[in-house]
Amino acid sequence: MVTAVIVAAGSGTRMDGEGDKLFLEVGQLPVAGHTWRNFDRHPNIDEIVIVIRDDTLPKFESLADEVSPSKPFSFIIGGQERQDSVRNGIKAASDGCNIVAIHDGARPCVDAETISRTIEAAKEHGASVAATKIVDTIKLSDGNACISQNVDRTHLWSVQTPQVFKINTILKAMDAVDEQRATVTDDTAACELIGQSVTLVESKKPNPKVTTSLDLPFIEFLLKE
Amino acid sequence: MVTAVIVAAGSGTRMDGEGDKLFLEVGQLPVAGHTWRNFDRHPNIDEIVIVIRDDTLPKFESLADEVSPSKPFSFIIGGQERQDSVRNGIKAASDGCNIVAIHDGARPCVDAETISRTIEAAKEHGASVAATKIVDTIKLSDGNACISQNVDRTHLWSVQTPQVFKINTILKAMDAVDEQRATVTDDTAACELIGQSVTLVESKKPNPKVTTSLDLPFIEFLLKE
Repeated sequence: MVTAVIVAAGSGTRMDGEGDKLFLEVGQLPVAGHTWRNFDRHPNIDEIVIVIRDDTLPKFESLADEVSPSKPFSFIIGGQERQDSVRNGIKAASDGCNIVAIHDGARPCVDAETISRTIEAAKEHGASVAATKIVDTIKLSDGNACISQNVDRTHLWSVQTPQVFKINTILKAMDAVDEQRATVTDDTAACELIGQSVTLVESKKPNPKVTTSLDLPFIEFLLKE
Repeated sequence: MVTAVIVAAGSGTRMDGEGDKLFLEVGQLPVAGHTWRNFDRHPNIDEIVIVIRDDTLPKFESLADEVSPSKPFSFIIGGQERQDSVRNGIKAASDGCNIVAIHDGARPCVDAETISRTIEAAKEHGASVAATKIVDTIKLSDGNACISQNVDRTHLWSVQTPQVFKINTILKAMDAVDEQRATVTDDTAACELIGQSVTLVESKKPNPKVTTSLDLPFIEFLLKE
C-alpha cells in the first residue's frame, strides 16, 4: 500500500503580499488542487495525507469539493519545521502502508511517470527522489561576491519531490535526525544519517515549485500540456 | 567605450526539429531581436557586435530591419567553439573600446539594471558576471544514479550573462586559454587562468536562456513585464 504525503504546511512567506501560494488559481483550480488531483488519479497511490497549517483547514475543506477525490484522504496539522510536518504526515498513514511518497504541495505539475518511477525505485532500493541534472554553469563564491572556483557540474543534481521511501526506512531515518538533533532540508538527507542510499530518478518533464507569481504562467502552460 | 558582443552562433541543436531557437517568435519579434534591442536601448552601450553562423546572415539582415537599431552594429562570423566565437566578437570591437559585455543571444529578457551593474563592476574590478544564488537542494551523485552526498549550496551560484570585462583582461585571459590549450565553457573561467577575480552581480530579475520551446511562455511573460 502506497500513501502519498502532500506537504502543504509552509508559510508561503516568499509570496510577499500575494497570500498563500498553494491557493493561487492556475487554470481554474488552486495550485494545491492540481497537486492533489495528480496523486488522486495515479493508479499506484492508495491514500493521500495532506499536511496543512491549522488556519488553512477551511480552505482545504473547500478544496476537497473542487478536487472531488476518488481516494481516501485526511488532513493533518503540520509542525514547526518541514521535517516535523513530514513526520506528522507519515504517522497518519494507514496501518497497511509500506511505501510513502512525500511531495511538495507547491509542485502541481508532477507527472504520472515520475510518480511511478520513484515508487518503483523505492520499492527496489528503499529510497528514491525525483531530480534533474544541473545544466547551468555553477561557480563557488568566496563568500564575498567573487568567484572562488568553477564547479564541475557533471555529478550535480537538483532534487525535487516526490521523495519516496519504505515507511520503516524513513521512520528510522527520522529517529536518527531526532537523536542527532540534526536539521535536514529534505527527507533524503535524513537517509544519509542511517547509511541508506537514495536513488536519483531523473524527471523527464519540468516539475517546478511555485515560489513567486512569476512562476504561474509557466505552471499554467505545463498543466495545459 | 562599451561594446556588447552578442553570441548568436550556436547550432541550436537542443531545439530538435524546431529550427534555430534564436528565431523563435516571442511577442512579435524573434528571441534574438529582443536581446539585440535590450542592448541597443541601453544608455551605457556604444556599439554592438553580433556573432553569427554564416548560414544565418540573411536572417540577421532581415532582423536588423525589425529591430531598427539606433546604435552601430556589425555581424561577425563565429568559430568552432563558443570561445572562438567570443574571441572573434571581441576582436571586431572598435579601437576605442575598453569594456566588452558578452551576452548570450538566447537570453532575451536581460534587464537594463543588470547590464548597468555588470558594466560598473567590470570597470571597477576588471571582470564581472550576472548570476543567481542556487535555491534548490543540490546533491552530488556517485556517478551511478545514487546520492553520494548533500552539497552545501550556501556559496553556490548559477552564472548567466552578461559577462563583462576590461578588454585587455579578457584578451589576456583568452591568450592563456590558447597557450594552455584549455577548453572553457564560459568566459569567466578563462579569467581564472590568469588569476583575475570575477565579481558576481546578482540578477534581480529572471534572465533565462531559451533552450526548448517549453521556455517560451515564461519568456513571453517576462518580456511583457
